[in-house]
Amino acid sequence: MTEHAVVPHLTTAQTGPLLTIERHLLDHQTGIETWFRDRWRETPPPFYASVDLRNAGFKISPVDTNLFPAGFNNLSPAFLPLCVQAVQVAMQRVCGEACRVLLVPESHTRNRFYLESLATLEAILEQAGYEVRIGTINPEITRETVIELESGRSLRLEPLRREGDRVMVEGYTPCLVLLNNDLSAGRPEILEGLSQPVVPPLAIGWANRLKSVHFAHYRDVANEFARLVELDPWLLQPLFRNCGEVDFMKGEGVGCLHVNTEKLLREIRAKYEEYGIDQEPVVFVKADSGTYGMGVMTVRHADEVLALNRKQRTRMSKSKEGLRISNVIIQEGVPTSERVDDHAAEPVVYMIDRYVVGGFYRVHAERGEADNLNAPGMRFEPLAFAESCITPDPAREPDAGPNRFYAYGVVARLALLAAARELAALG
Amino acid sequence: MTEHAVVPHLTTAQTGPLLTIERHLLDHQTGIETWFRDRWRETPPPFYASVDLRNAGFKISPVDTNLFPAGFNNLSPAFLPLCVQAVQVAMQRVCGEACRVLLVPESHTRNRFYLESLATLEAILEQAGYEVRIGTINPEITRETVIELESGRSLRLEPLRREGDRVMVEGYTPCLVLLNNDLSAGRPEILEGLSQPVVPPLAIGWANRLKSVHFAHYRDVANEFARLVELDPWLLQPLFRNCGEVDFMKGEGVGCLHVNTEKLLREIRAKYEEYGIDQEPVVFVKADSGTYGMGVMTVRHADEVLALNRKQRTRMSKSKEGLRISNVIIQEGVPTSERVDDHAAEPVVYMIDRYVVGGFYRVHAERGEADNLNAPGMRFEPLAFAESCITPDPAREPDAGPNRFYAYGVVARLALLAAARELAALG
Repeated sequence: MTEHAVVPHLTTAQTGPLLTIERHLLDHQTGIETWFRDRWRETPPPFYASVDLRNAGFKISPVDTNLFPAGFNNLSPAFLPLCVQAVQVAMQRVCGEACRVLLVPESHTRNRFYLESLATLEAILEQAGYEVRIGTINPEITRETVIELESGRSLRLEPLRREGDRVMVEGYTPCLVLLNNDLSAGRPEILEGLSQPVVPPLAIGWANRLKSVHFAHYRDVANEFARLVELDPWLLQPLFRNCGEVDFMKGEGVGCLHVNTEKLLREIRAKYEEYGIDQEPVVFVKADSGTYGMGVMTVRHADEVLALNRKQRTRMSKSKEGLRISNVIIQEGVPTSERVDDHAAEPVVYMIDRYVVGGFYRVHAERGEADNLNAPGMRFEPLAFAESCITPDPAREPDAGPNRFYAYGVVARLALLAAARELAALG
Repeated sequence: MTEHAVVPHLTTAQTGPLLTIERHLLDHQTGIETWFRDRWRETPPPFYASVDLRNAGFKISPVDTNLFPAGFNNLSPAFLPLCVQAVQVAMQRVCGEACRVLLVPESHTRNRFYLESLATLEAILEQAGYEVRIGTINPEITRETVIELESGRSLRLEPLRREGDRVMVEGYTPCLVLLNNDLSAGRPEILEGLSQPVVPPLAIGWANRLKSVHFAHYRDVANEFARLVELDPWLLQPLFRNCGEVDFMKGEGVGCLHVNTEKLLREIRAKYEEYGIDQEPVVFVKADSGTYGMGVMTVRHADEVLALNRKQRTRMSKSKEGLRISNVIIQEGVPTSERVDDHAAEPVVYMIDRYVVGGFYRVHAERGEADNLNAPGMRFEPLAFAESCITPDPAREPDAGPNRFYAYGVVARLALLAAARELAALG
């Protein structure tokens, strides 16, 4: 392999526990893979997912699990064959006989990054041997629209139509509807009650998901897994608390939020003391339903939630596509200690079916380590993982590229399993 | 991807029909993949295989299908993740609950190339999350033997033991026995009647296989497939005839051989005229059972089989591990028109389960294009395929790297399907 592995160097002083994590994962590799196989036998994995991770130096945690992943264009082209092969497995599982796929994308057709991801996803499905057409629910697209992309590819969007209990685009009735739209605005009427399988199911759209449900499943998964690899589960998960409905504009529920924020900060502080971590704990207060990072508040002292000014309250009351915040989750902020060229770097891991197919770093130019790197409008440079996440090498140091990426792949799969349990609970 | 694709340039004048083949495969890609999916539903693929191909410029054919592949060390490290992922699928299929694998290797422990391949295969299985030990049937290995390899890896061989209906190595009873020994010398007693699954089955060992059976299945497969992609099946297969028992030392059966050689040469000549190919047809006369290229005779005129001298007769009467030639197959010689730095290059494609995971070129320094490149003792330089075989790009020329490799992957999978039918016929 002539590519160079870009593995950002940890600059934090607390590398001890992290190397412990990676060492434990390497030492238990066979057991880990056997454990995952058993888990997937109990609960099938989602069709695909991307998981945002934070590597704090002393812990590695997921912070977001997206079941309608974008960003496929950020993966190394060297690993697209892995995606193609994994899609073949995934398609066999969800719909053995399917050969005509209809991809339903996000409606934001002016986001050129998203469109490049969509073109990559389309190419992966085609290379896997499936016919693909893209049927959009964007009301602005009323006829076939071809968009030329900067990569030189072109993308053909067609308006989605419905006849009886089936959706189609002009002259093409698919066997499978593959959602790449996170349904932040809710379940689109046109996709309800179809006779064609819809994957992932409508019920797992962002508007229906609660972060607290995902992270409660994740907590169970991490506890089970931590016993297997003999680690403190805290090293693999963000602590969190939730506290029912909060209306920032009216100030309702803020007392409960204050109390829980205080408790969570205290829990984190205790863990920091246990591990000798000389940092100030931070928590994020955010909407429990999906928001793309809108309305996220960074809190270092519980009192801050009491002292919001008007502008801050307004910001906390808005989220993507206008959902009003009601349920609120308070989550441990896991700092990013990874740096690429001195900029904070957050790993994002991609999975198709049960397989880790690649990932990239979001490299941020300006923000500090504790801030939410996935905030709206945030610019980042993607840096593709240069090595796969499935070729650990026990002969090398625990933080050598393949071993670091293996650790990421393991933690991301824990989040994938939590999402699988979320899906299974939908019935 | 910063690696450079090394795609040898065709130097033959007859590129017309070949580009036709590749164009047809690209145009039918979705249909091809759907067809393979349907076929694998009827007949499960072998655990793994490598297929030697010949690219004549005017046709692409398999010439050898190995169900106990070596040469894993010749694949590009960039594609080992594909192997890891495919092994996970294969293992799930053959033995859902297995986690302890016993690998039974070839006994030629002094072949450093083979040992590197074995180490790579072991690493792939381990990275896929399985415990692996290597249990050899080589009587010279009577206790644990560690061999240091040039790659810096080391390989631990242990003597295979049997207790009741199970095999094991010291302190390790496997759930699955994975054969990487082609059983040229026949079915080893120690592996008969085990309660553990043996994959691939003993009955498919070289001593039990007939090339004529494989190529008869291949002919059916190629005929079916050729209809799908609207091509003359001859463009995808070597013609062959077989003619019962031949004893070269005694001269028995040579008359039949002469007649059939004449007929086959005439058939090939007719095809060459049809396609305007200005070359002299050639056939190979070889043992119908597996021989690693021993006792292969290159024939341009049928009379040559009548005029063998004593030395040639002796050579034809011997084959690997001393099997006496009895049944003989006469096979169309498909010339190699591919060149790397002016040397003949023969593609070898690797598959695990139904997935094409990579390949390499055997680059030969000296031999002519019609000779059998896989002859014993032949030196070759491996040149890993620089791109995957599963990412065709219809926007590029039919002979662009990814499309050339896709064509190889398709033809190799046709041979894989023929082998699958061979296996299924064993019952």
